[in-house]
Amino acid sequence: MTGQQKSEVAIEGNFVQLLGSGYKSHFIQLRKGEVFQTHRGVIAHDDIIGKKWGSCLHSHQGNPFYLMQPALGDVLKNLKRNTQIMYPKDIGYAIMVMGIGPGQTVLEAGTGSGALTCAFAFLVGDNGKVISYDRKAEIQDLAGKNLAKMGLNARVIFKSRDVSEGFDERNVDAIFLDLQNPYDYVEQVKTALKPGGFFGSILPTMNQVALLLEKLNHANFAFIEVCEVLLRFYKTDWERFRPTDRMVAHTGFLIFARSVFELDQKIEVGDDNIENNEETISN
Amino acid sequence: MTGQQKSEVAIEGNFVQLLGSGYKSHFIQLRKGEVFQTHRGVIAHDDIIGKKWGSCLHSHQGNPFYLMQPALGDVLKNLKRNTQIMYPKDIGYAIMVMGIGPGQTVLEAGTGSGALTCAFAFLVGDNGKVISYDRKAEIQDLAGKNLAKMGLNARVIFKSRDVSEGFDERNVDAIFLDLQNPYDYVEQVKTALKPGGFFGSILPTMNQVALLLEKLNHANFAFIEVCEVLLRFYKTDWERFRPTDRMVAHTGFLIFARSVFELDQKIEVGDDNIENNEETISN
Amino acid sequence: MTGQQKSEVAIEGNFVQLLGSGYKSHFIQLRKGEVFQTHRGVIAHDDIIGKKWGSCLHSHQGNPFYLMQPALGDVLKNLKRNTQIMYPKDIGYAIMVMGIGPGQTVLEAGTGSGALTCAFAFLVGDNGKVISYDRKAEIQDLAGKNLAKMGLNARVIFKSRDVSEGFDERNVDAIFLDLQNPYDYVEQVKTALKPGGFFGSILPTMNQVALLLEKLNHANFAFIEVCEVLLRFYKTDWERFRPTDRMVAHTGFLIFARSVFELDQKIEVGDDNIENNEETISN
Amino acid sequence: MTGQQKSEVAIEGNFVQLLGSGYKSHFIQLRKGEVFQTHRGVIAHDDIIGKKWGSCLHSHQGNPFYLMQPALGDVLKNLKRNTQIMYPKDIGYAIMVMGIGPGQTVLEAGTGSGALTCAFAFLVGDNGKVISYDRKAEIQDLAGKNLAKMGLNARVIFKSRDVSEGFDERNVDAIFLDLQNPYDYVEQVKTALKPGGFFGSILPTMNQVALLLEKLNHANFAFIEVCEVLLRFYKTDWERFRPTDRMVAHTGFLIFARSVFELDQKIEVGDDNIENNEETISN
Repeated sequence: MTGQQKSEVAIEGNFVQLLGSGYKSHFIQLRKGEVFQTHRGVIAHDDIIGKKWGSCLHSHQGNPFYLMQPALGDVLKNLKRNTQIMYPKDIGYAIMVMGIGPGQTVLEAGTGSGALTCAFAFLVGDNGKVISYDRKAEIQDLAGKNLAKMGLNARVIFKSRDVSEGFDERNVDAIFLDLQNPYDYVEQVKTALKPGGFFGSILPTMNQVALLLEKLNHANFAFIEVCEVLLRFYKTDWERFRPTDRMVAHTGFLIFARSVFELDQKIEVGDDNIENNEETISN
Repeated sequence: MTGQQKSEVAIEGNFVQLLGSGYKSHFIQLRKGEVFQTHRGVIAHDDIIGKKWGSCLHSHQGNPFYLMQPALGDVLKNLKRNTQIMYPKDIGYAIMVMGIGPGQTVLEAGTGSGALTCAFAFLVGDNGKVISYDRKAEIQDLAGKNLAKMGLNARVIFKSRDVSEGFDERNVDAIFLDLQNPYDYVEQVKTALKPGGFFGSILPTMNQVALLLEKLNHANFAFIEVCEVLLRFYKTDWERFRPTDRMVAHTGFLIFARSVFELDQKIEVGDDNIENNEETISN
Repeated sequence: MTGQQKSEVAIEGNFVQLLGSGYKSHFIQLRKGEVFQTHRGVIAHDDIIGKKWGSCLHSHQGNPFYLMQPALGDVLKNLKRNTQIMYPKDIGYAIMVMGIGPGQTVLEAGTGSGALTCAFAFLVGDNGKVISYDRKAEIQDLAGKNLAKMGLNARVIFKSRDVSEGFDERNVDAIFLDLQNPYDYVEQVKTALKPGGFFGSILPTMNQVALLLEKLNHANFAFIEVCEVLLRFYKTDWERFRPTDRMVAHTGFLIFARSVFELDQKIEVGDDNIENNEETISN
Repeated sequence: MTGQQKSEVAIEGNFVQLLGSGYKSHFIQLRKGEVFQTHRGVIAHDDIIGKKWGSCLHSHQGNPFYLMQPALGDVLKNLKRNTQIMYPKDIGYAIMVMGIGPGQTVLEAGTGSGALTCAFAFLVGDNGKVISYDRKAEIQDLAGKNLAKMGLNARVIFKSRDVSEGFDERNVDAIFLDLQNPYDYVEQVKTALKPGGFFGSILPTMNQVALLLEKLNHANFAFIEVCEVLLRFYKTDWERFRPTDRMVAHTGFLIFARSVFELDQKIEVGDDNIENNEETISN
């Protein structure tokens, strides 16, 4: 997913996406002699190797599949998982708020199936680093395999340890906790995060959010923000254009905050953010 | 915003964020002898230089400001603008779907105030490239200044030209059109985009979306997706936790599609995407 | 559903609701000697007759069912149907905007399964009247049966006729068109509606809405309003309070307008309604 | 608003709506010799009396105003208020769920500015009754005046008393609490409500909702439901059809429950309601 963009054709070892009817995605690593199998028919890897990206291949049953280089969003949606994973809509917004990008050092806990790990690893690039904590080593195995297929594993360090023992790292750019009880680890976050660095978390229930907000407010975090990202899809028939019938109504509440040295009570927190788009880059 | 993360203190030349009460952000470039001025008082740049990130500074009136390294989302929200700009919520989701990341070559038109340009430039890193088209050179001046302050200008090539004349580039990873009439340039996109590459656009009205969908369907684009991203903020008072009273209800419809060699009619488009989270990475 | 509220116990002939586990509703008319059957067991009607409203009955398998007097919303959600029906969320808002209440004369087309017919008939009371048009008499049979069970049929007149031939009525208080092509019948509505009366409609696609808006603007309708009603449910566990995972994302766009004698171009239509809550009852 | 629908023209004493540009509504009671005044000019009541509903009148400055019979939704939106009032979107849904209609006896507390009181009074008709409690008699004065103008006051009994002392009534069809602490009055509700009757409430914060849910679950209430109603308006320009830029994001959480004799633990509460539209009227 990283270094392969420059070839016009799929080559052996590539991690490729085969997109079939109804937007069904299949992700495979091309190996000579192997066979891609679905209930819509089979295609030999040898018939895929050498084909141009964007080509339409057909299974022995005649069903079409487009050959694509995987994009981050598609990969994440289709990730092999043993836990609930973060949705692209939530990851995308978190990345913007926390300013994740090339060259950064980012911490996360827990690893889970590695969706957020993949996104962070993809975006920090070759000069960045992701350190991912999880209590269970066996959980991290799957995440590691997912990363390896995408060629992103060299950018990630896994640590199988409980966050309550603290992080080894200091001065990291951002920390994201995808845990049930992030409110128990606010001090550990504080110690590892660089001043001004971003803390992020996602929680399903309001009770958890309330607990976290209270802890953040008592631990020198400022500019706390809580939001939800809702994604509404539309049918693409331009003569009968309308939203889809159903939608995902809830994945989680996103919480962000910035670590500061000393909380100044004159700066009131908790204001509506909607009003704050007025200021511009001055000087 | 790019190479400065490693210093613990603000140094001359840094592009810094001063966060005041009510989440008001101010962005300045530090220069000895200059003065930061707001209606909440003034602070000399000399009093900022050398301070640790995350420190709380005070204006001569005693009002507090936190010294921060700017994060992408904050910068974009506060960008100096002469046109409507894309919101972080929309940019974040577009980046995920289109898989924008380090090392890529990305095209956009029009430049506008450069919000999307900044995001793309930040994310493609030192080895990537952004080419930004706009009919009006004077519009691009502001975008250029915005990029320069963030130290991102070396990654961007501006071209002051109408898209109807076509793009100079070929085989680019992704193209985003933030124009009123993207439906008029579908062929130009097709020519410049790599097979399997992502096209994206944002449009305010459904009439425009319908026109674009029709064109995309007749020009060998597949896996077309239309959606809206809605962002709902919450008050951060944990004893009175609730959504804010008002929200931004509409910024635009996002449209994404992938270029393919030949559209196979057996692959029906326009299905609900909500159902498609089942498949996993196999092999 | 109408005259039965005064008895404390269920009596023969009553239209009753049996609410079982997981909010499953069953609606039956009590008749001596009959048996209520579900996959959770059976209960003899004789064992229901004479029981107090709010009692918990048990099937022969020991499964609990609450005995309730049906409320409008529950009845509508569970209506026997042969077509898509309007949701309570949409009916409730339409009733408020159009000011439907006791003593009014209301027209509708088409009848469909009679959900809206039931709501109108329930609300106009004994002194009101609902006239319901539908091309197909056989469709109206089911609606008639639904109304009869609720004791509302005396308030409704069915007419099996295409709306293109016009309505027989004049000076009615409100007209609602639940048809695919309401834009073809704007003149017929105009003729039957009292001046200042309310027109309402629901349409699934934006293309239909655009057609209707154009026609309404050319036919002396003013104060046109288009909106969507979205309903978000929450899990009721107070220690893990959160929205449900999925929701209905789209049922239809609601369109309302008022008939006036002469459209004055100085009154601009199409403004944001959100701003208009300032004015108060004066004098 | 109630008995006046049958006249084709406005007559003295009528409560009328004057709809001006930008949907601005003005509500007045017609009295000979008086003058309607706005910043868009004046119109003598004598020039309104005798005019047909739906006519376009002009102020002395030439600004147009449509003469309308007020509809419930418009009246409520424009109610003279001294407190936050319930929105039509929330009232409309509450009415559907609680099955409010002609002939019923409905209790509410507190009265506030009387928006919900008006809606209930309008819908229960001449044979129904609304009893409205509020601690402060002076608050109820405004509500009384609002009701009188609409001709609905004979249907409402005001009681200036704290709900903690209990309700005088028994066996009422429905009770709605629009109070800060409805969780303190669950027993009082239980005593006054008929078995199977509906309880409803609206609360701004999740902390309040959690408290209420706990109390309801311990007081023989079943079929508890929590939801939010969101209303999204669209611009009515059919060539540039799109949602409005901003919307009301939060008014309150609606909570509904039904009183039962004895809570059967085999009936699990708190399930997703979205799944429950399958059952139909049987028998």
